[in-house]
Amino acid sequence: MKVYIEPIGKLINEFSKLPGVGAKTAQRFAYKVVNMSKEDAKSFADAIMSVKNNVHYCKICGNFSEGDICDVCKNRQSDVICVVKEPKDVIAIEKLNEFNGTYHVLHGTISPMDGIGPNDINIKGLLERISNGGVTEVIMATNPDVEGEATAMYITGLIKPLGIKVTRIAHGIPVGTDLEYADEVSLARAFVDRKTL
Amino acid sequence: MKVYIEPIGKLINEFSKLPGVGAKTAQRFAYKVVNMSKEDAKSFADAIMSVKNNVHYCKICGNFSEGDICDVCKNRQSDVICVVKEPKDVIAIEKLNEFNGTYHVLHGTISPMDGIGPNDINIKGLLERISNGGVTEVIMATNPDVEGEATAMYITGLIKPLGIKVTRIAHGIPVGTDLEYADEVSLARAFVDRKTL
Repeated sequence: MKVYIEPIGKLINEFSKLPGVGAKTAQRFAYKVVNMSKEDAKSFADAIMSVKNNVHYCKICGNFSEGDICDVCKNRQSDVICVVKEPKDVIAIEKLNEFNGTYHVLHGTISPMDGIGPNDINIKGLLERISNGGVTEVIMATNPDVEGEATAMYITGLIKPLGIKVTRIAHGIPVGTDLEYADEVSLARAFVDRKTL
Repeated sequence: MKVYIEPIGKLINEFSKLPGVGAKTAQRFAYKVVNMSKEDAKSFADAIMSVKNNVHYCKICGNFSEGDICDVCKNRQSDVICVVKEPKDVIAIEKLNEFNGTYHVLHGTISPMDGIGPNDINIKGLLERISNGGVTEVIMATNPDVEGEATAMYITGLIKPLGIKVTRIAHGIPVGTDLEYADEVSLARAFVDRKTL
């Protein structure tokens, strides 16, 4: 005899596709839905479909957007473009309330191992924006991993000859960490990128 | 400026209603849905609605059921009824493949603190099933907490005078636990409920 009746088994299966959710957690989530009111379940299901139907990518920068153009591109005029790997990186930076420029989302990083070359990510769009003029600085904010560094280097090679300032976000030991506990790579980077006081 | 566009913010909000899911996890789940194919998202949303539309409670025992009568009641003839608090307890027991009797789900336990009295849980249904005859043993498998114990005692008081055997599942130290690490209450129970070898 099967343990779960079909609708519950199916929902557990769906929940277990979420990142970090195992069988036990998926089961807890499914029970929670079973005990929800019909309205709550409907608004949950609607929210899922709404994300698929209403989240698009900005035609200018590639960020999440409800319409053709995202809120950042609509509301900001800036000569600084921050280049990131994914739309969620934009959200992470926006949360800081520190950066007032615009973004460019690559939707990936160059990764020959995975067969992703420079033409598979949105570099063309960035070059077009630069060629339209008005850009004085491009900040490379890709992740500090091999692919992120390689992509930053590649794009720098394309943009620098155009006479535009290209910068890279700083890597080093995180604020609040004891030297003793910092990972070796970050500590080494902190020495290489040391600055004059 | 708001950080999330509306559909994503809404979905994060929905996910964070799930048990044990905080803001960061809800955000990860939402990103996962954004990156799902439209078909996958639809089957996820459908699974949620299907649980609300197709999961009913068995008219006999109160277990989860797709129709009027659950699979257990449909397929098993037994003179033993196992009384549990919630439908998910049935699933936990069914997974063992040890128990071959039928169930009775109370949908709660007596809890005066929360204003739940004997008439608020499905005791009447149990008494009806017993009065129909054919029941020789009732196993009280409510949780080993104050409410579960009180409920087991209350129901025992109603059924025992009818000449039916009433048993309680054993409590003691879990299998595989060192005595040293067992919690005191369980260890004390293990002594009280010790059995002759």
